[in-house]
Amino acid sequence: MQSSLDFYFFIGSTYSYLSVARAAKAAADAGIALRWKPFSVRMLMREQNNSPFIGKPAKLKYMWRDIERRAERLGIPFAGAPPYPIDPDERANHVATLASMEGWCEDFVRAAYVTWFLKKLDPGVPENLRVILDDLGRNAKACMTRAENAPVVDLYKERTDAARAFGIFGSPSYVAGHEVFWGDDRLEDALAWSSARREA
Amino acid sequence: MQSSLDFYFFIGSTYSYLSVARAAKAAADAGIALRWKPFSVRMLMREQNNSPFIGKPAKLKYMWRDIERRAERLGIPFAGAPPYPIDPDERANHVATLASMEGWCEDFVRAAYVTWFLKKLDPGVPENLRVILDDLGRNAKACMTRAENAPVVDLYKERTDAARAFGIFGSPSYVAGHEVFWGDDRLEDALAWSSARREA
Repeated sequence: MQSSLDFYFFIGSTYSYLSVARAAKAAADAGIALRWKPFSVRMLMREQNNSPFIGKPAKLKYMWRDIERRAERLGIPFAGAPPYPIDPDERANHVATLASMEGWCEDFVRAAYVTWFLKKLDPGVPENLRVILDDLGRNAKACMTRAENAPVVDLYKERTDAARAFGIFGSPSYVAGHEVFWGDDRLEDALAWSSARREA
Repeated sequence: MQSSLDFYFFIGSTYSYLSVARAAKAAADAGIALRWKPFSVRMLMREQNNSPFIGKPAKLKYMWRDIERRAERLGIPFAGAPPYPIDPDERANHVATLASMEGWCEDFVRAAYVTWFLKKLDPGVPENLRVILDDLGRNAKACMTRAENAPVVDLYKERTDAARAFGIFGSPSYVAGHEVFWGDDRLEDALAWSSARREA
């Protein structure tokens, strides 16, 4: 049986840009199915009093420089710090949840991150969201309406509850079985863990 | 000219255990001189309102599990979570600063971390500090007195000021030129950066 790795992410997480760009191929190369699971890391961070960058200018400045260096090392385009924070109403994340129910999550999330990091626009703003959905050949108006209602918002909440139960506190997080790996820089460890599980 | 890499660390930082165990050999293998620089990350964290684990149980729990997995991967012994936090008066860090002035910093810091992580004792408690210094063949009483006075405490403060100026906010941090790399998991990136600088 093919093993799988659950990819918990939030559109609005900066380091998730690197994972969105590379995790699917890395997983495929390892023969592992990557399952895309948008969740509200913002809700968990509020609950856990865990604000990684807001009000912490030294850490924020380092984060952008670190992403720039990592992107270069990984061969991922980077065009300087994009707007931050984004998606205040979590609309982009709701659409990602809808997309995860219909099999086009990866395409949508990659496009959302290109909009954010390379076009430097907030993918959660309705007019930008519309452009992304149009470009993907989706009915933007219908998607955006469905994304804000049941069962989509329920699934988004359910995934957030599951993330909390796993002990997740940040994005991206990878879950293999009950093992959590936090951060784009733990992708290789997470894949190695998934492979070992399959062989065990 | 041999290039160098500055290793900013605080005895009390959990992930620094991994770096203390492996950074010197990794740097030597790369032909890079590692310069040991104890500083008060605690002071910077207070200033920057950056408390990574205290009051954040999910993140704290993950951190110990992550260190356990990383230690296993790196071939470093781990015996479960040791006492935390430690060294309330930063005595162990003051002695490390003295040791850095006299060429025995690596030996002392490695012994301090063995005491903390494997013997599960706070190396900052005077009676434990005394045992470490005795075992290293140092005059414990003299070292402990000198460690709490000028010029040692001044250098400790000076290094903390330098760390702040570099934009450091956590331990371990590696500095190559003006480039900061935070975390044990950035050691390889920091060494690669130092090597590239030498060749440039």
